[in-house]
Amino acid sequence: MALVTLRSNTILRRTTKLAKHFSSTSCPEDGPYKTVVMKTAVPGPVSQEMMAEMVGFNTSLGSVPFFVDYEKSQGNYMLDADGNVFLDAFSQISSLPLGYNHAALTKAVHSSKVTNYLVNRPALAIMPPIDTKQLLERTLLRVMPKGMDCVQTMMCGSCSVENAFKAAMIKYRADQRGEYLPTEIELDTCMRSEEPGTPDLTILSFKTAFHGRTFGSLSATRSKGIHRVDIPLLDWPAADFPMLKYPLHENEAENREIENRALDTVREQIKMYNERGRHVAAAIVEPIQAEGGDNYATPYFFRELQKILKEYNVAFIVDEVQTGGGATGKFWAHEHWDLPEAPDMVTFAKKMLIGGFFYQQEFLPKQAYRIFNTWMGDPARNALLESVLDTVENDKLIERTQSAGRVLMNGLVEAQNKYPGLISNARGLGTFLAVSCPSPERRDEFVTLLRESGLSMSGCGTDSIRFRPALIFNESHSKLLLEILDSTLSKVVH
Amino acid sequence: MALVTLRSNTILRRTTKLAKHFSSTSCPEDGPYKTVVMKTAVPGPVSQEMMAEMVGFNTSLGSVPFFVDYEKSQGNYMLDADGNVFLDAFSQISSLPLGYNHAALTKAVHSSKVTNYLVNRPALAIMPPIDTKQLLERTLLRVMPKGMDCVQTMMCGSCSVENAFKAAMIKYRADQRGEYLPTEIELDTCMRSEEPGTPDLTILSFKTAFHGRTFGSLSATRSKGIHRVDIPLLDWPAADFPMLKYPLHENEAENREIENRALDTVREQIKMYNERGRHVAAAIVEPIQAEGGDNYATPYFFRELQKILKEYNVAFIVDEVQTGGGATGKFWAHEHWDLPEAPDMVTFAKKMLIGGFFYQQEFLPKQAYRIFNTWMGDPARNALLESVLDTVENDKLIERTQSAGRVLMNGLVEAQNKYPGLISNARGLGTFLAVSCPSPERRDEFVTLLRESGLSMSGCGTDSIRFRPALIFNESHSKLLLEILDSTLSKVVH
Repeated sequence: MALVTLRSNTILRRTTKLAKHFSSTSCPEDGPYKTVVMKTAVPGPVSQEMMAEMVGFNTSLGSVPFFVDYEKSQGNYMLDADGNVFLDAFSQISSLPLGYNHAALTKAVHSSKVTNYLVNRPALAIMPPIDTKQLLERTLLRVMPKGMDCVQTMMCGSCSVENAFKAAMIKYRADQRGEYLPTEIELDTCMRSEEPGTPDLTILSFKTAFHGRTFGSLSATRSKGIHRVDIPLLDWPAADFPMLKYPLHENEAENREIENRALDTVREQIKMYNERGRHVAAAIVEPIQAEGGDNYATPYFFRELQKILKEYNVAFIVDEVQTGGGATGKFWAHEHWDLPEAPDMVTFAKKMLIGGFFYQQEFLPKQAYRIFNTWMGDPARNALLESVLDTVENDKLIERTQSAGRVLMNGLVEAQNKYPGLISNARGLGTFLAVSCPSPERRDEFVTLLRESGLSMSGCGTDSIRFRPALIFNESHSKLLLEILDSTLSKVVH
Repeated sequence: MALVTLRSNTILRRTTKLAKHFSSTSCPEDGPYKTVVMKTAVPGPVSQEMMAEMVGFNTSLGSVPFFVDYEKSQGNYMLDADGNVFLDAFSQISSLPLGYNHAALTKAVHSSKVTNYLVNRPALAIMPPIDTKQLLERTLLRVMPKGMDCVQTMMCGSCSVENAFKAAMIKYRADQRGEYLPTEIELDTCMRSEEPGTPDLTILSFKTAFHGRTFGSLSATRSKGIHRVDIPLLDWPAADFPMLKYPLHENEAENREIENRALDTVREQIKMYNERGRHVAAAIVEPIQAEGGDNYATPYFFRELQKILKEYNVAFIVDEVQTGGGATGKFWAHEHWDLPEAPDMVTFAKKMLIGGFFYQQEFLPKQAYRIFNTWMGDPARNALLESVLDTVENDKLIERTQSAGRVLMNGLVEAQNKYPGLISNARGLGTFLAVSCPSPERRDEFVTLLRESGLSMSGCGTDSIRFRPALIFNESHSKLLLEILDSTLSKVVH
């Protein structure tokens, strides 16, 4: 650790100068900013002072690299408290669709509709606003995945996942008992957490998956020990996620075998849990395992997975919290799969500004108060989503993401060829891209060096680096990112 | 049900005329509205049409009595889609601190700070804004309960409770193993939900408690079967909540015995679970069981509870999601208890506009990413809270709540004396008040009749009616509420 810090500081002084040589970007959304400008070490003295002031005052400062000046940030450029200008290829854990201070959002915030929802926040499930239908039609229903019937808004990704689980379980129990309404015995026994009222239903998830950190979503999350340790969880089945070889098109035969073996574990787990009377009500999967390391599976895998789940009446939940909203080059990542039928549910949050899940009619609760809480989402954020979707459409941001992604992906392939011992496995869709590093330690070192060179990105899994720019990232930003990467890698080599 | 509908319609036509006789209120926040005005049945034709349009489109329309026109609503008066003017004594499930369209909030929404946070929503735990400390000092730290050290913001009540549980468990496990960091074996075994990494720790809650509906919070919720049924839960201990006799001051001796017996069950449950190796890491309690029926315990009960929990190293979590924010006549309901020491954690949401929990320093996670998610709260709502707190202070709204509450409570006592077979057990603190009805059916009927007479309130528990006005409710609103209640009860009698 001391060594890394020393190296980092040495590099830092170099990058301060080098930054001047990086090319500049062209993007009206970026305002005055054209390239990265590093004035101090990271964190700089102002951020360090802020950290010191907040010690013992709030949690988890260990995860904070610096404090951000959101007023001064613009477009793809994020400014920290010390005035350093970063190219942002992480966009607040992939949650900012249009970068910083986008004019369309600033305008929307001041609309009477958004103001009204902010000042008079409704309890949506009991006192919905008169324009509920219109609001949903202009926002979530406009991008509802093909084949889905309904949408339920929620507050964040975790509670979207939790409530999708609940909706799947309510339907599964209704199927089991042959009628929707619970019996008196069930209503009584559930108060003591006893069967049949509290059934031992399970949710199947995949190894290295991430679905959230509340108790239900965490029971399906298997990304890292530190995420799960010390917390009692529901013991639910885990199948293997196929760990494919990259590039995918050069390893098709071997990857097909890896995927088939993973699919076998899905079947085995469902059979085993069902036989034990611990029936699998739903399976949840990310189109790309993000937090777990940017792990990909092919469309074949997901189509076969759907077949298996149908066979066992297991609801198919696609968790698009991180992949949804356009970054993969399609609005929903599962559109890349060409499924014969839609999945049963699709969860979302992050770039959608609010959480929630789309679902098939058969998962609609037939009794009030079963999927319920006070706020049930946030219509102010939902109203802002209208401006996001208008901008994505008008400015052709999905297309922009596709072309920016092509440039970035090609450059990552070139970089891994140029620096074979340092990065590998360039992979991804759209601008949703990643590379692997030789070891976890090397990865952590690269993350630090890249940040000190003015690139904001993040690690994922044990040894990968992920890029998650906003949808306004264009080809010139991809080129700048690649220059910073090349500069950093060349210094590590020499 | 058909009978109730028939009666209700009959009554409705009467109340439309009667409403004219209700006295008028005086409150600058209410704008043009002075009393209730009922123009149609509830739901009126416009609301009914909106419901029909949304069938099969979204969940749970069964919980929707009507659609609300939030732009036209003002102060304590809520307008529905048909132009009916209700006196609002429910305030969006107790979550609107200042009623509708309060000038202070409208102004705050347009401030550059709120705009900035809405347009550039930060991932707070990795990229905090430069004014994080100042924002917290002006809002949550300003009302931090006496004796607490830290605050963690969250998105809603449920995830606040879930993360308070996690913080308690992380600390409990650290105490058990004698050091903070988990071992390699723990980090490994937790990936398979096995001990020691996945410990079988438990949370003690009380019968008829409500703490939320996500898997962790639902495991501690014991309000009604329909809230828990069909969902697999963690099997956690439940103690008796004392079911006291009202009025409390006339039943002190008997209530003391009831509370002592309930406290015995706390001790028994902790001992039993600890002996089984299923250690109790925390206990959570509402100062007033709200959803479960507005059940009260005395300060004695909570002081004794704290002693027992200390004896067993069980963290004491006070769930102030519904009681916090001033409605009980103190900002935090647990301030009524005069505890010798602060509780270990206090959860909040609703009237605070965002969720979160206050906690003692010893529960501060010492490792990053252990209490973590993407958004970690909502600084835009937090910034709006500043205006709420300013208004509460400047307009002396806690004092207003005390005086409005006195008038309302006295009136409820008079009403229960006048209509002994119809309502009873008038109880509460501030304007956080409730009455009991002779049966669940009678309660549901009263709720319908009161709503049709222009009063928005809600049932709770099996047979109670609760009042949850905003903090701008004053004595004249209490009088109007009492007139509507008297008019409704007198019609039921005759």
